[in-house]
Amino acid sequence: MADDGGSTGVLRDELGVLPPGDVRQCLVALSESPKIRDLFNYRFEEGTFGGHSFGNILLTALEKVTGNFSEAIETASEILRVDGRVLPATLDNVRLRMSWEDESITLSGERVIDADHFANDPRKAQLSLEPTATANPTALAAIQEADLVIIAPGDLYTSIGPLLVIDGFGQALSSTAAKVAYVCNLVTKKGQTEGFSVATHAAEVERFAGMPVLDYVLYNNAEPMAELAEKYRAENAFIVNAPTNEFESTHYEVVSGDFLGQVAARESGDELPVTRSFIRHDEAKLGKTLTSLIPNE
Amino acid sequence: MADDGGSTGVLRDELGVLPPGDVRQCLVALSESPKIRDLFNYRFEEGTFGGHSFGNILLTALEKVTGNFSEAIETASEILRVDGRVLPATLDNVRLRMSWEDESITLSGERVIDADHFANDPRKAQLSLEPTATANPTALAAIQEADLVIIAPGDLYTSIGPLLVIDGFGQALSSTAAKVAYVCNLVTKKGQTEGFSVATHAAEVERFAGMPVLDYVLYNNAEPMAELAEKYRAENAFIVNAPTNEFESTHYEVVSGDFLGQVAARESGDELPVTRSFIRHDEAKLGKTLTSLIPNE
Repeated sequence: MADDGGSTGVLRDELGVLPPGDVRQCLVALSESPKIRDLFNYRFEEGTFGGHSFGNILLTALEKVTGNFSEAIETASEILRVDGRVLPATLDNVRLRMSWEDESITLSGERVIDADHFANDPRKAQLSLEPTATANPTALAAIQEADLVIIAPGDLYTSIGPLLVIDGFGQALSSTAAKVAYVCNLVTKKGQTEGFSVATHAAEVERFAGMPVLDYVLYNNAEPMAELAEKYRAENAFIVNAPTNEFESTHYEVVSGDFLGQVAARESGDELPVTRSFIRHDEAKLGKTLTSLIPNE
Repeated sequence: MADDGGSTGVLRDELGVLPPGDVRQCLVALSESPKIRDLFNYRFEEGTFGGHSFGNILLTALEKVTGNFSEAIETASEILRVDGRVLPATLDNVRLRMSWEDESITLSGERVIDADHFANDPRKAQLSLEPTATANPTALAAIQEADLVIIAPGDLYTSIGPLLVIDGFGQALSSTAAKVAYVCNLVTKKGQTEGFSVATHAAEVERFAGMPVLDYVLYNNAEPMAELAEKYRAENAFIVNAPTNEFESTHYEVVSGDFLGQVAARESGDELPVTRSFIRHDEAKLGKTLTSLIPNE
Protein backbone atom coordinates (compact mmCIF):
# COMPACT_ATOMS: atom_id res chain seq x y z
CA MET A 1 0.00 0.00 0.00
CA ALA A 2 3.02 2.30 -0.11
CA ASP A 3 3.89 1.54 -3.75
CA ASP A 4 4.27 4.79 -5.67
CA GLY A 5 5.94 3.98 -8.99
CA GLY A 6 5.15 2.98 -12.55
CA SER A 7 1.59 2.33 -13.65
CA THR A 8 0.51 2.18 -10.01
CA GLY A 9 2.03 5.57 -9.27
CA VAL A 10 0.22 7.23 -12.17
CA LEU A 11 -3.16 5.74 -11.19
CA ARG A 12 -2.56 6.71 -7.60
CA ASP A 13 -1.59 10.29 -8.42
CA GLU A 14 -4.19 10.93 -11.10
CA LEU A 15 -7.20 9.13 -9.70
CA GLY A 16 -6.52 9.10 -5.98
CA VAL A 17 -6.91 5.35 -5.66
CA LEU A 18 -4.96 2.99 -3.46
CA PRO A 19 -1.94 1.41 -5.18
CA PRO A 20 -3.18 -1.62 -7.13
CA GLY A 21 0.15 -3.14 -8.28
CA ASP A 22 1.06 -5.48 -5.43
CA VAL A 23 -2.55 -6.55 -4.85
CA ARG A 24 -2.82 -7.43 -8.53
CA GLN A 25 0.26 -9.64 -8.29
CA CYS A 26 -1.14 -11.43 -5.22
CA LEU A 27 -4.48 -11.98 -6.95
CA VAL A 28 -2.84 -13.29 -10.11
CA ALA A 29 -0.69 -15.69 -8.08
CA LEU A 30 -3.85 -17.18 -6.53
CA SER A 31 -5.95 -17.23 -9.70
CA GLU A 32 -7.19 -20.53 -11.07
CA SER A 33 -7.94 -19.24 -14.58
CA PRO A 34 -4.84 -19.01 -16.82
CA LYS A 35 -6.78 -17.03 -19.42
CA ILE A 36 -7.91 -14.34 -17.02
CA ARG A 37 -4.48 -14.37 -15.37
CA ASP A 38 -2.93 -13.46 -18.72
CA LEU A 39 -5.48 -10.68 -19.07
CA PHE A 40 -4.65 -9.26 -15.63
CA ASN A 41 -0.95 -9.28 -16.38
CA TYR A 42 -1.35 -7.75 -19.83
CA ARG A 43 0.48 -4.45 -20.13
CA PHE A 44 -0.49 -2.02 -22.89
CA GLU A 45 2.50 -1.29 -25.06
CA GLU A 46 1.50 1.90 -26.81
CA GLY A 47 -0.96 4.77 -27.01
CA THR A 48 -2.82 6.40 -24.14
CA PHE A 49 -2.58 3.25 -22.03
CA GLY A 50 1.09 2.52 -22.74
CA GLY A 51 2.84 1.02 -19.70
CA HIS A 52 -0.35 0.32 -17.76
CA SER A 53 -1.19 -3.20 -16.77
CA PHE A 54 -4.77 -4.22 -17.30
CA GLY A 55 -5.13 -5.59 -13.77
CA ASN A 56 -4.19 -2.19 -12.33
CA ILE A 57 -6.81 -0.50 -14.48
CA LEU A 58 -9.39 -3.05 -13.38
CA LEU A 59 -8.68 -2.56 -9.68
CA THR A 60 -8.79 1.20 -10.15
CA ALA A 61 -12.14 1.09 -11.95
CA LEU A 62 -13.52 -1.26 -9.30
CA GLU A 63 -12.40 1.04 -6.50
CA LYS A 64 -14.17 3.91 -8.27
CA VAL A 65 -17.35 1.88 -8.87
CA THR A 66 -17.59 0.23 -5.45
CA GLY A 67 -16.20 3.18 -3.53
CA ASN A 68 -13.73 1.14 -1.53
CA PHE A 69 -10.62 -0.90 -2.12
CA SER A 70 -11.63 -3.95 -0.07
CA GLU A 71 -14.74 -4.46 -2.15
CA ALA A 72 -12.72 -3.89 -5.31
CA ILE A 73 -10.38 -6.72 -4.32
CA GLU A 74 -13.34 -8.97 -3.53
CA THR A 75 -14.94 -8.43 -6.94
CA ALA A 76 -11.60 -8.79 -8.71
CA SER A 77 -11.14 -12.08 -6.84
CA GLU A 78 -14.45 -13.32 -8.22
CA ILE A 79 -13.49 -12.33 -11.75
CA LEU A 80 -10.08 -13.99 -11.42
CA ARG A 81 -11.51 -17.05 -9.67
CA VAL A 82 -9.07 -16.66 -6.86
CA ASP A 83 -8.57 -19.56 -4.48
CA GLY A 84 -7.87 -17.69 -1.25
CA ARG A 85 -8.13 -14.15 0.04
CA VAL A 86 -5.96 -11.10 -0.50
CA LEU A 87 -6.09 -8.65 2.40
CA PRO A 88 -4.09 -5.42 2.32
CA ALA A 89 -2.26 -4.65 5.56
CA THR A 90 -3.79 -1.18 5.58
CA LEU A 91 -6.40 0.68 3.56
CA ASP A 92 -4.79 4.04 4.20
CA ASN A 93 -3.16 6.10 1.50
CA VAL A 94 0.43 6.18 2.75
CA ARG A 95 3.99 6.82 1.64
CA LEU A 96 7.02 4.91 2.82
CA ARG A 97 9.79 6.75 4.65
CA MET A 98 13.20 5.57 5.81
CA SER A 99 15.20 7.79 8.09
CA TRP A 100 18.50 7.77 9.90
CA GLU A 101 17.77 10.16 12.72
CA ASP A 102 21.34 10.42 13.91
CA GLU A 103 22.42 11.41 10.42
CA SER A 104 19.43 13.60 9.68
CA ILE A 105 18.89 11.61 6.49
CA THR A 106 15.43 10.74 5.21
CA LEU A 107 14.44 8.86 2.07
CA SER A 108 10.82 9.30 0.95
CA GLY A 109 8.79 7.04 -1.30
CA GLU A 110 9.00 3.33 -1.96
CA ARG A 111 10.54 3.64 -5.41
CA VAL A 112 13.19 6.04 -4.18
CA ILE A 113 14.12 3.74 -1.32
CA ASP A 114 14.01 0.69 -3.60
CA ALA A 115 16.54 2.24 -5.97
CA ASP A 116 18.86 3.63 -3.32
CA HIS A 117 22.31 2.39 -2.39
CA PHE A 118 22.28 3.20 1.30
CA ALA A 119 25.15 5.39 2.45
CA ASN A 120 24.46 4.35 6.03
CA ASP A 121 23.71 1.06 7.75
CA PRO A 122 20.02 0.32 7.04
CA ARG A 123 19.80 -1.59 10.31
CA LYS A 124 20.03 1.76 12.06
CA ALA A 125 17.24 3.32 10.02
CA GLN A 126 13.65 3.82 11.07
CA LEU A 127 11.08 2.61 8.59
CA SER A 128 7.69 4.30 8.81
CA LEU A 129 4.55 5.16 6.87
CA GLU A 130 3.22 8.66 6.47
CA PRO A 131 0.69 9.51 7.63
CA THR A 132 0.51 6.81 10.26
CA ALA A 133 -1.23 3.76 8.84
CA THR A 134 -4.07 2.01 10.62
CA ALA A 135 -3.88 -1.76 10.36
CA ASN A 136 -6.67 -3.37 8.33
CA PRO A 137 -8.65 -5.17 11.08
CA THR A 138 -9.62 -7.95 8.67
CA ALA A 139 -5.94 -8.67 8.05
CA LEU A 140 -5.21 -8.75 11.79
CA ALA A 141 -8.17 -11.09 12.30
CA ALA A 142 -6.85 -13.39 9.55
CA ILE A 143 -3.55 -13.64 11.42
CA GLN A 144 -5.38 -14.60 14.60
CA GLU A 145 -7.38 -17.28 12.78
CA ALA A 146 -4.45 -18.74 10.83
CA ASP A 147 -2.67 -22.04 11.43
CA LEU A 148 0.52 -20.84 9.82
CA VAL A 149 1.64 -17.32 8.92
CA ILE A 150 4.33 -17.20 6.24
CA ILE A 151 6.45 -14.11 5.87
CA ALA A 152 7.49 -14.62 2.27
CA PRO A 153 10.82 -13.72 0.72
CA GLY A 154 10.87 -10.08 -0.36
CA ASP A 155 12.84 -6.88 -0.20
CA LEU A 156 13.44 -6.14 3.47
CA TYR A 157 13.08 -2.37 3.27
CA THR A 158 10.41 -1.97 0.63
CA SER A 159 8.23 -5.09 0.85
CA ILE A 160 8.43 -6.91 4.17
CA GLY A 161 9.31 -3.95 6.39
CA PRO A 162 6.55 -1.51 5.38
CA LEU A 163 3.92 -4.04 6.38
CA LEU A 164 5.47 -5.10 9.67
CA VAL A 165 5.95 -1.56 10.96
CA ILE A 166 2.20 -0.89 10.87
CA ASP A 167 0.98 -0.64 14.42
CA GLY A 168 -0.69 -3.89 15.43
CA PHE A 169 1.07 -6.37 13.17
CA GLY A 170 3.89 -7.20 15.57
CA GLN A 171 1.36 -7.71 18.35
CA ALA A 172 -0.87 -9.88 16.12
CA LEU A 173 2.05 -12.07 15.03
CA SER A 174 3.22 -12.37 18.60
CA SER A 175 -0.17 -13.22 20.08
CA THR A 176 -1.61 -15.55 17.45
CA ALA A 177 -1.74 -19.28 18.13
CA ALA A 178 -0.47 -19.74 14.57
CA LYS A 179 3.11 -20.66 13.86
CA VAL A 180 4.99 -17.81 12.19
CA ALA A 181 7.57 -18.77 9.57
CA TYR A 182 9.95 -16.41 7.79
CA VAL A 183 11.34 -17.60 4.47
CA CYS A 184 14.66 -15.86 3.93
CA ASN A 185 15.68 -14.41 0.58
CA LEU A 186 18.06 -16.44 -1.57
CA VAL A 187 20.30 -13.53 -2.54
CA THR A 188 21.23 -10.15 -1.08
CA LYS A 189 20.20 -6.87 -2.63
CA LYS A 190 22.86 -4.60 -4.06
CA GLY A 191 23.58 -1.55 -1.92
CA GLN A 192 20.95 -2.58 0.63
CA THR A 193 21.49 -5.97 2.25
CA GLU A 194 25.00 -6.82 1.05
CA GLY A 195 26.69 -9.09 3.56
CA PHE A 196 23.46 -9.79 5.44
CA SER A 197 23.26 -13.37 6.68
CA VAL A 198 20.04 -15.32 7.24
CA ALA A 199 20.15 -14.36 10.92
CA THR A 200 20.55 -10.70 10.02
CA HIS A 201 17.51 -10.85 7.75
CA ALA A 202 15.50 -12.49 10.52
CA ALA A 203 16.69 -9.92 13.05
CA GLU A 204 15.54 -7.08 10.78
CA VAL A 205 12.12 -8.74 10.40
CA GLU A 206 11.73 -8.79 14.15
CA ARG A 207 13.08 -5.25 14.52
CA PHE A 208 10.31 -4.05 12.17
CA ALA A 209 7.71 -6.08 14.09
CA GLY A 210 9.00 -4.49 17.29
CA MET A 211 9.17 -7.80 19.14
CA PRO A 212 10.05 -11.48 18.74
CA VAL A 213 7.47 -12.96 16.38
CA LEU A 214 9.20 -15.80 14.53
CA ASP A 215 8.75 -19.47 15.32
CA TYR A 216 10.67 -20.69 12.27
CA VAL A 217 13.28 -19.30 9.92
CA LEU A 218 13.64 -21.19 6.64
CA TYR A 219 16.61 -20.91 4.35
CA ASN A 220 17.94 -22.70 1.33
CA ASN A 221 21.18 -24.64 1.72
CA ALA A 222 21.56 -25.92 -1.84
CA GLU A 223 24.21 -24.41 -4.08
CA PRO A 224 22.99 -22.78 -7.27
CA MET A 225 24.87 -23.58 -10.48
CA ALA A 226 28.25 -21.88 -10.50
CA GLU A 227 27.56 -19.78 -13.59
CA LEU A 228 24.34 -18.51 -12.08
CA ALA A 229 25.97 -17.48 -8.83
CA GLU A 230 28.67 -15.79 -10.92
CA LYS A 231 26.06 -13.91 -12.95
CA TYR A 232 24.57 -12.58 -9.73
CA ARG A 233 27.93 -11.69 -8.22
CA ALA A 234 28.65 -9.64 -11.33
CA GLU A 235 25.68 -7.50 -10.34
CA ASN A 236 26.59 -7.35 -6.67
CA ALA A 237 23.97 -9.83 -5.55
CA PHE A 238 25.28 -12.66 -3.40
CA ILE A 239 23.87 -15.89 -2.06
CA VAL A 240 22.70 -15.23 1.51
CA ASN A 241 25.02 -17.12 3.83
CA ALA A 242 24.05 -18.79 7.08
CA PRO A 243 26.93 -19.18 9.57
CA THR A 244 25.57 -21.77 12.01
CA ASN A 245 27.11 -20.03 15.02
CA GLU A 246 24.69 -17.13 14.49
CA PHE A 247 21.79 -19.44 15.31
CA GLU A 248 23.19 -20.62 18.63
CA SER A 249 21.11 -18.42 20.89
CA THR A 250 18.12 -17.61 18.69
CA HIS A 251 14.61 -18.17 19.99
CA TYR A 252 13.30 -19.43 16.63
CA GLU A 253 13.80 -22.83 15.06
CA VAL A 254 15.96 -22.90 11.96
CA VAL A 255 14.82 -25.06 9.05
CA SER A 256 17.20 -25.42 6.15
CA GLY A 257 16.84 -27.52 3.05
CA ASP A 258 17.14 -27.66 -0.70
CA PHE A 259 14.50 -25.10 -1.67
CA LEU A 260 16.17 -24.08 -4.89
CA GLY A 261 14.24 -24.06 -8.16
CA GLN A 262 15.54 -25.02 -11.54
CA VAL A 263 16.47 -22.25 -13.93
CA ALA A 264 13.17 -20.43 -14.35
CA ALA A 265 12.11 -19.00 -17.65
CA ARG A 266 10.85 -15.48 -17.42
CA GLU A 267 7.09 -15.69 -17.14
CA SER A 268 4.67 -13.65 -19.19
CA GLY A 269 3.87 -10.40 -17.45
CA ASP A 270 6.56 -10.93 -14.88
CA GLU A 271 7.93 -7.58 -13.82
CA LEU A 272 11.11 -8.82 -12.24
CA PRO A 273 14.35 -7.87 -13.95
CA VAL A 274 15.69 -10.73 -16.02
CA THR A 275 18.68 -11.37 -13.78
CA ARG A 276 16.44 -12.12 -10.84
CA SER A 277 14.45 -14.65 -12.82
CA PHE A 278 17.17 -17.26 -12.53
CA ILE A 279 17.75 -17.99 -8.87
CA ARG A 280 14.36 -18.78 -7.41
CA HIS A 281 12.67 -20.82 -4.74
CA ASP A 282 11.03 -24.03 -5.86
CA GLU A 283 7.43 -23.68 -4.79
CA ALA A 284 6.83 -27.42 -4.45
CA LYS A 285 9.88 -28.09 -2.28
CA LEU A 286 9.25 -25.03 -0.13
CA GLY A 287 5.52 -25.74 0.07
CA LYS A 288 6.14 -29.26 1.33
CA THR A 289 8.37 -28.05 4.16
CA LEU A 290 6.01 -25.19 5.06
CA THR A 291 3.03 -27.55 5.15
CA SER A 292 4.90 -29.80 7.56
CA LEU A 293 5.09 -26.86 9.99
CA ILE A 294 1.32 -26.55 10.32
CA PRO A 295 0.32 -27.94 13.74
CA ASN A 296 -1.57 -31.28 13.47
CA GLU A 297 -0.89 -31.52 9.76
CA MET B 1 -17.89 -2.71 -36.27
CA ALA B 2 -17.84 0.64 -38.08
CA ASP B 3 -17.93 2.74 -34.92
CA ASP B 4 -15.14 5.30 -34.98
CA GLY B 5 -15.84 7.88 -32.30
CA GLY B 6 -15.18 8.60 -28.63
CA SER B 7 -13.35 6.09 -26.47
CA THR B 8 -13.82 3.41 -29.14
CA GLY B 9 -12.27 5.63 -31.82
CA VAL B 10 -9.17 6.32 -29.74
CA LEU B 11 -8.64 2.64 -28.93
CA ARG B 12 -9.19 1.73 -32.56
CA ASP B 13 -6.76 4.34 -33.86
CA GLU B 14 -4.06 3.91 -31.26
CA LEU B 15 -4.09 0.18 -30.76
CA GLY B 16 -5.50 -1.14 -34.01
CA VAL B 17 -8.24 -3.14 -32.33
CA LEU B 18 -11.80 -3.64 -33.55
CA PRO B 19 -14.27 -1.13 -32.12
CA PRO B 20 -15.37 -2.39 -28.70
CA GLY B 21 -18.15 0.12 -27.90
CA ASP B 22 -21.25 -1.52 -29.35
CA VAL B 23 -20.15 -5.01 -28.37
CA ARG B 24 -19.69 -3.80 -24.82
CA GLN B 25 -23.23 -2.46 -24.74
CA CYS B 26 -24.63 -5.75 -26.05
CA LEU B 27 -22.65 -7.72 -23.48
CA VAL B 28 -23.77 -5.47 -20.66
CA ALA B 29 -27.41 -5.77 -21.73
CA LEU B 30 -27.15 -9.57 -21.46
CA SER B 31 -25.12 -9.68 -18.24
CA GLU B 32 -26.58 -11.33 -15.18
CA SER B 33 -24.23 -9.66 -12.69
CA PRO B 34 -25.27 -6.09 -11.77
CA LYS B 35 -21.93 -5.52 -10.05
CA ILE B 36 -19.82 -6.45 -13.06
CA ARG B 37 -22.25 -4.61 -15.35
CA ASP B 38 -21.56 -1.41 -13.40
CA LEU B 39 -17.85 -2.08 -13.78
CA PHE B 40 -18.14 -2.53 -17.55
CA ASN B 41 -20.09 0.68 -17.91
CA TYR B 42 -17.78 2.67 -15.67
CA ARG B 43 -16.21 5.58 -17.49
CA PHE B 44 -13.04 7.17 -16.11
CA GLU B 45 -13.61 10.83 -15.44
CA GLU B 46 -10.11 12.23 -15.30
CA GLY B 47 -6.43 11.59 -15.88
CA THR B 48 -4.86 9.40 -18.55
CA PHE B 49 -8.00 7.29 -18.82
CA GLY B 50 -10.47 10.19 -18.84
CA GLY B 51 -13.45 9.46 -21.13
CA HIS B 52 -12.67 5.76 -21.57
CA SER B 53 -15.17 3.18 -20.46
CA PHE B 54 -13.75 0.25 -18.57
CA GLY B 55 -15.54 -2.30 -20.76
CA ASN B 56 -13.84 -0.89 -23.85
CA ILE B 57 -10.44 -1.16 -22.18
CA LEU B 58 -11.22 -4.74 -21.17
CA LEU B 59 -12.24 -5.79 -24.68
CA THR B 60 -9.15 -4.09 -26.09
CA ALA B 61 -6.82 -5.86 -23.65
CA LEU B 62 -8.55 -9.17 -24.35
CA GLU B 63 -8.18 -8.74 -28.09
CA LYS B 64 -4.46 -8.06 -27.56
CA VAL B 65 -4.04 -11.06 -25.23
CA THR B 66 -6.10 -13.57 -27.21
CA GLY B 67 -5.14 -12.22 -30.62
CA ASN B 68 -8.67 -12.12 -31.95
CA PHE B 69 -11.87 -10.26 -31.29
CA SER B 70 -14.19 -13.27 -31.24
CA GLU B 71 -12.24 -14.88 -28.43
CA ALA B 72 -12.11 -11.55 -26.62
CA ILE B 73 -15.92 -11.40 -26.68
CA GLU B 74 -16.15 -14.98 -25.45
CA THR B 75 -13.89 -14.35 -22.46
CA ALA B 76 -15.63 -11.06 -21.69
CA SER B 77 -18.93 -12.96 -21.77
CA GLU B 78 -17.60 -15.37 -19.15
CA ILE B 79 -16.44 -12.51 -16.93
CA LEU B 80 -19.78 -10.70 -17.30
CA ARG B 81 -21.77 -13.90 -16.89
CA VAL B 82 -23.65 -13.22 -20.07
CA ASP B 83 -26.81 -15.19 -20.75
CA GLY B 84 -26.65 -15.45 -24.53
CA ARG B 85 -24.10 -14.82 -27.26
CA VAL B 86 -22.87 -11.62 -28.88
CA LEU B 87 -21.69 -12.12 -32.46
CA PRO B 88 -20.34 -9.19 -34.49
CA ALA B 89 -21.69 -9.02 -38.04
CA THR B 90 -18.14 -8.80 -39.36
CA LEU B 91 -14.65 -9.08 -37.91
CA ASP B 92 -13.16 -6.76 -40.50
CA ASN B 93 -11.78 -3.36 -39.68
CA VAL B 94 -14.12 -1.15 -41.71
CA ARG B 95 -15.39 2.42 -42.02
CA LEU B 96 -18.94 3.41 -42.86
CA ARG B 97 -19.61 5.42 -46.00
CA MET B 98 -22.82 7.01 -47.25
CA SER B 99 -22.86 8.37 -50.76
CA TRP B 100 -25.29 10.06 -53.11
CA GLU B 101 -23.80 9.12 -56.43
CA ASP B 102 -26.02 11.44 -58.46
CA GLU B 103 -24.92 14.34 -56.34
CA SER B 104 -21.30 13.26 -55.99
CA ILE B 105 -21.63 13.59 -52.24
CA THR B 106 -19.94 11.18 -49.87
CA LEU B 107 -19.96 11.13 -46.08
CA SER B 108 -17.25 9.04 -44.43
CA GLY B 109 -17.20 7.62 -40.93
CA GLU B 110 -19.98 6.58 -38.60
CA ARG B 111 -19.70 9.56 -36.27
CA VAL B 112 -19.71 12.00 -39.17
CA ILE B 113 -22.81 10.41 -40.66
CA ASP B 114 -24.48 10.16 -37.26
CA ALA B 115 -24.07 13.89 -36.67
CA ASP B 116 -25.07 14.99 -40.17
CA HIS B 117 -28.28 16.71 -41.21
CA PHE B 118 -28.65 15.27 -44.66
CA ALA B 119 -28.94 17.84 -47.43
CA ASN B 120 -30.33 15.13 -49.74
CA ASP B 121 -32.88 12.37 -49.35
CA PRO B 122 -31.12 9.57 -47.46
CA ARG B 123 -33.37 7.04 -49.20
CA LYS B 124 -31.40 7.74 -52.34
CA ALA B 125 -28.03 7.21 -50.69
CA GLN B 126 -25.86 4.11 -50.89
CA LEU B 127 -24.62 2.82 -47.58
CA SER B 128 -21.41 0.78 -47.71
CA LEU B 129 -18.43 -0.36 -45.71
CA GLU B 130 -14.85 0.24 -46.73
CA PRO B 131 -13.03 -1.94 -47.45
CA THR B 132 -15.74 -4.46 -48.30
CA ALA B 133 -16.68 -6.36 -45.15
CA THR B 134 -16.88 -10.14 -45.03
CA ALA B 135 -19.83 -11.42 -43.03
CA ASN B 136 -18.91 -13.26 -39.83
CA PRO B 137 -19.90 -16.85 -40.73
CA THR B 138 -20.83 -17.58 -37.11
CA ALA B 139 -23.34 -14.72 -37.21
CA LEU B 140 -24.85 -16.00 -40.45
CA ALA B 141 -25.07 -19.50 -38.98
CA ALA B 142 -26.85 -18.09 -35.90
CA ILE B 143 -29.46 -16.53 -38.20
CA GLN B 144 -30.01 -19.88 -39.90
CA GLU B 145 -30.41 -21.65 -36.56
CA ALA B 146 -32.69 -19.04 -34.97
CA ASP B 147 -36.44 -19.33 -34.32
CA LEU B 148 -36.92 -15.58 -34.39
CA VAL B 149 -34.61 -12.82 -35.63
CA ILE B 150 -35.35 -9.39 -34.17
CA ILE B 151 -34.08 -6.30 -35.93
CA ALA B 152 -34.10 -4.00 -32.94
CA PRO B 153 -34.89 -0.30 -32.97
CA GLY B 154 -31.84 1.76 -33.85
CA ASP B 155 -30.54 4.53 -36.07
CA LEU B 156 -31.32 3.54 -39.65
CA TYR B 157 -28.17 4.89 -41.25
CA THR B 158 -25.59 4.27 -38.53
CA SER B 159 -26.79 1.19 -36.62
CA ILE B 160 -29.22 -1.01 -38.56
CA GLY B 161 -28.07 -0.19 -42.09
CA PRO B 162 -24.31 -0.82 -41.73
CA LEU B 163 -25.01 -4.39 -40.62
CA LEU B 164 -27.61 -5.21 -43.26
CA VAL B 165 -25.52 -4.00 -46.20
CA ILE B 166 -22.82 -6.59 -45.47
CA ASP B 167 -22.89 -9.15 -48.24
CA GLY B 168 -24.70 -12.27 -47.04
CA PHE B 169 -27.02 -10.82 -44.40
CA GLY B 170 -29.95 -10.13 -46.73
CA GLN B 171 -29.63 -13.66 -48.13
CA ALA B 172 -29.40 -15.19 -44.64
CA LEU B 173 -32.46 -13.29 -43.41
CA SER B 174 -34.36 -14.23 -46.55
CA SER B 175 -33.47 -17.94 -46.50
CA THR B 176 -33.68 -18.71 -42.77
CA ALA B 177 -36.67 -20.68 -41.51
CA ALA B 178 -36.79 -18.17 -38.64
CA LYS B 179 -39.39 -15.43 -38.54
CA VAL B 180 -37.82 -12.00 -38.98
CA ALA B 181 -39.34 -9.13 -37.02
CA TYR B 182 -38.40 -5.48 -37.30
CA VAL B 183 -39.23 -3.29 -34.31
CA CYS B 184 -39.66 0.25 -35.58
CA ASN B 185 -38.19 3.25 -33.77
CA LEU B 186 -40.55 5.31 -31.59
CA VAL B 187 -39.34 8.70 -32.80
CA THR B 188 -37.68 10.12 -35.89
CA LYS B 189 -34.13 11.40 -35.95
CA LYS B 190 -33.53 15.10 -36.57
CA GLY B 191 -32.17 15.86 -40.03
CA GLN B 192 -32.14 12.19 -40.95
CA THR B 193 -35.51 10.42 -40.78
CA GLU B 194 -37.86 13.37 -40.27
CA GLY B 195 -41.28 12.55 -41.70
CA PHE B 196 -40.45 8.83 -42.07
CA SER B 197 -43.45 6.61 -41.31
CA VAL B 198 -43.25 3.05 -39.98
CA ALA B 199 -43.58 1.75 -43.55
CA THR B 200 -40.75 4.00 -44.72
CA HIS B 201 -38.49 2.68 -41.94
CA ALA B 202 -39.34 -0.89 -42.94
CA ALA B 203 -38.74 -0.14 -46.61
CA GLU B 204 -35.28 1.23 -45.81
CA VAL B 205 -34.46 -1.89 -43.79
CA GLU B 206 -35.29 -4.04 -46.80
CA ARG B 207 -33.45 -1.71 -49.16
CA PHE B 208 -30.30 -2.24 -47.08
CA ALA B 209 -30.87 -6.00 -47.04
CA GLY B 210 -31.28 -5.90 -50.79
CA MET B 211 -34.42 -8.01 -50.78
CA PRO B 212 -37.66 -8.63 -48.86
CA VAL B 213 -36.65 -10.11 -45.51
CA LEU B 214 -39.32 -9.04 -43.01
CA ASP B 215 -42.11 -11.29 -41.77
CA TYR B 216 -43.33 -8.82 -39.15
CA VAL B 217 -43.11 -5.11 -38.53
CA LEU B 218 -43.92 -4.03 -34.98
CA TYR B 219 -44.76 -0.52 -33.95
CA ASN B 220 -46.08 1.24 -30.90
CA ASN B 221 -49.54 2.77 -31.13
CA ALA B 222 -49.80 4.26 -27.62
CA GLU B 223 -49.53 8.01 -27.18
CA PRO B 224 -46.71 9.29 -25.00
CA MET B 225 -47.51 11.93 -22.42
CA ALA B 226 -48.18 15.27 -24.13
CA GLU B 227 -45.31 17.09 -22.41
CA LEU B 228 -42.86 14.40 -23.45
CA ALA B 229 -43.89 14.51 -27.09
CA GLU B 230 -43.59 18.30 -26.86
CA LYS B 231 -40.09 18.04 -25.42
CA TYR B 232 -39.08 15.87 -28.37
CA ARG B 233 -40.78 18.13 -30.92
CA ALA B 234 -38.77 21.02 -29.53
CA GLU B 235 -35.66 19.09 -30.63
CA ASN B 236 -37.09 18.10 -34.00
CA ALA B 237 -37.78 14.51 -33.05
CA PHE B 238 -41.30 13.32 -33.78
CA ILE B 239 -43.34 10.24 -32.97
CA VAL B 240 -43.15 7.90 -35.95
CA ASN B 241 -46.59 7.81 -37.57
CA ALA B 242 -48.19 4.80 -39.20
CA PRO B 243 -50.82 5.68 -41.81
CA THR B 244 -52.71 2.40 -42.24
CA ASN B 245 -53.07 2.84 -46.00
CA GLU B 246 -49.31 2.42 -46.34
CA PHE B 247 -49.63 -1.15 -45.14
CA GLU B 248 -52.26 -2.18 -47.69
CA SER B 249 -49.96 -3.97 -50.12
CA THR B 250 -47.01 -4.89 -47.91
CA HIS B 251 -45.78 -8.47 -47.80
CA TYR B 252 -45.08 -8.39 -44.06
CA GLU B 253 -47.54 -8.64 -41.21
CA VAL B 254 -48.01 -5.49 -39.17
CA VAL B 255 -48.23 -5.86 -35.40
CA SER B 256 -49.08 -2.76 -33.43
CA GLY B 257 -49.64 -2.42 -29.71
CA ASP B 258 -48.89 -0.43 -26.60
CA PHE B 259 -45.14 -0.96 -26.36
CA LEU B 260 -44.44 2.32 -24.60
CA GLY B 261 -42.40 2.40 -21.41
CA GLN B 262 -42.99 4.63 -18.44
CA VAL B 263 -40.76 7.67 -18.07
CA ALA B 264 -37.33 6.08 -17.71
CA ALA B 265 -34.73 7.43 -15.38
CA ARG B 266 -31.34 7.79 -16.96
CA GLU B 267 -29.43 4.67 -16.08
CA SER B 268 -25.92 4.60 -14.74
CA GLY B 269 -23.42 4.49 -17.56
CA ASP B 270 -26.06 5.09 -20.17
CA GLU B 271 -24.56 7.00 -23.05
CA LEU B 272 -27.78 8.20 -24.62
CA PRO B 273 -28.43 11.92 -24.51
CA VAL B 274 -30.83 12.78 -21.74
CA THR B 275 -33.69 13.77 -24.03
CA ARG B 276 -33.77 10.31 -25.54
CA SER B 277 -34.04 8.67 -22.17
CA PHE B 278 -37.68 9.54 -21.84
CA ILE B 279 -39.60 7.92 -24.68
CA ARG B 280 -38.62 4.29 -24.62
CA HIS B 281 -39.96 0.87 -25.43
CA ASP B 282 -41.19 -1.20 -22.51
CA GLU B 283 -39.11 -4.37 -22.63
CA ALA B 284 -41.75 -6.50 -20.93
CA LYS B 285 -44.62 -5.45 -23.20
CA LEU B 286 -42.49 -5.73 -26.32
CA GLY B 287 -40.94 -9.00 -25.18
CA LYS B 288 -44.37 -10.59 -24.66
CA THR B 289 -45.47 -9.72 -28.20
CA LEU B 290 -42.16 -10.82 -29.73
CA THR B 291 -42.29 -14.13 -27.88
CA SER B 292 -45.76 -14.77 -29.29
CA LEU B 293 -44.26 -14.57 -32.80
CA ILE B 294 -41.93 -17.53 -32.24
CA PRO B 295 -43.33 -20.54 -34.15
CA ASN B 296 -44.73 -23.25 -31.83
CA GLU B 297 -44.24 -21.05 -28.77
